[in-house]
Amino acid sequence: MMHLILADSELEINPWNRKELLDSSIHHRIMEKNRMAKRQGRPDITHFFLIVAMESLLNKYGLLRVYVHTRNDEVIYIAPETRIIKNYNRFKGLILQLFEKKKVPFDNPLLVLENKSLKELIDELKGKKILFTRRGRKVEIKKLHEIMEEDVICIIGGFSSGYFLTKGIENMVDDIISIYDGMLPAWTVAMEAIAAYERFKF
Amino acid sequence: MMHLILADSELEINPWNRKELLDSSIHHRIMEKNRMAKRQGRPDITHFFLIVAMESLLNKYGLLRVYVHTRNDEVIYIAPETRIIKNYNRFKGLILQLFEKKKVPFDNPLLVLENKSLKELIDELKGKKILFTRRGRKVEIKKLHEIMEEDVICIIGGFSSGYFLTKGIENMVDDIISIYDGMLPAWTVAMEAIAAYERFKF
Repeated sequence: MMHLILADSELEINPWNRKELLDSSIHHRIMEKNRMAKRQGRPDITHFFLIVAMESLLNKYGLLRVYVHTRNDEVIYIAPETRIIKNYNRFKGLILQLFEKKKVPFDNPLLVLENKSLKELIDELKGKKILFTRRGRKVEIKKLHEIMEEDVICIIGGFSSGYFLTKGIENMVDDIISIYDGMLPAWTVAMEAIAAYERFKF
Repeated sequence: MMHLILADSELEINPWNRKELLDSSIHHRIMEKNRMAKRQGRPDITHFFLIVAMESLLNKYGLLRVYVHTRNDEVIYIAPETRIIKNYNRFKGLILQLFEKKKVPFDNPLLVLENKSLKELIDELKGKKILFTRRGRKVEIKKLHEIMEEDVICIIGGFSSGYFLTKGIENMVDDIISIYDGMLPAWTVAMEAIAAYERFKF
């Protein structure tokens, strides 16, 4: 099984209007005025990540579990059969509902939100813990499958700039890997991790 | 070089309001009333496909060229350095502008639209032509890199149901491949094709 965690993702309610998610493509002015970090408010990153991960062949074969950890130490558990809403605005509406009700749909929930740190989430799971960051040791793409094991926990940052907010994250993992010298979008790293595990597994 | 073509993609102007793209998530009622095919109006598929392809490692290494062919025999050429707009509504606005002006930005265009059939596009390009469809011969994911060559043209459907509209498409290609028994989203096939070529090439 591959466990795939989007860590410290920039997913939160808009503090100035609690009826919507913070989205920097819309709220950049008020964010700037209030000196909020530029990296905040990126539900689009989580959306693209989930679109790639949940629709992957690996997930169709039942070998993937996906989690979204947020900057405020919440964890979203995503049932493997979940079909992620393609429409971005409706996706944001769903995540807002999840923040409010903690599960959606309320009966037979597919998404469940719990207050939980990344450390607590990792401790629940079984497998080799691999952190992806450009600060890690360089592994060539063609050899990425060689670091995989039967059970792996792959951790990818859910932000567009900066570094993980979770302190001491390096001490929570077994291996720290870089697949490129620069920043990569979360879904590109997810795609490479998934393809490498498929290559290891299939 | 890998040439990646999204073929017969469901990208067109809304015939009832030529100031926007047709989008079935918004226009489903009027589409149904006018007996338009359910598969039409899916700019989201092109968006996700481009987000995956253009942000891939393969593209960062300069080894990928991406084309979007539409149901109305238009071809969009996408410069490798193009950063696809993440916001869906703004992406649709950009594609609308492209339909109107044939290039965006008008000076130093990154996207160029030409009236051209899939056959004409394929004939321009050099490489082994591989069509991805569930009707093709089955190739296991772990062996997908073996069908790659130095120059390949990979063709993926840009629609969510049905089959390619381009007639005789099977006769335009060298190989017809299936990587899964059911329908797969275009971006999932793109991800697998890109990962396979990276494995062949890197």
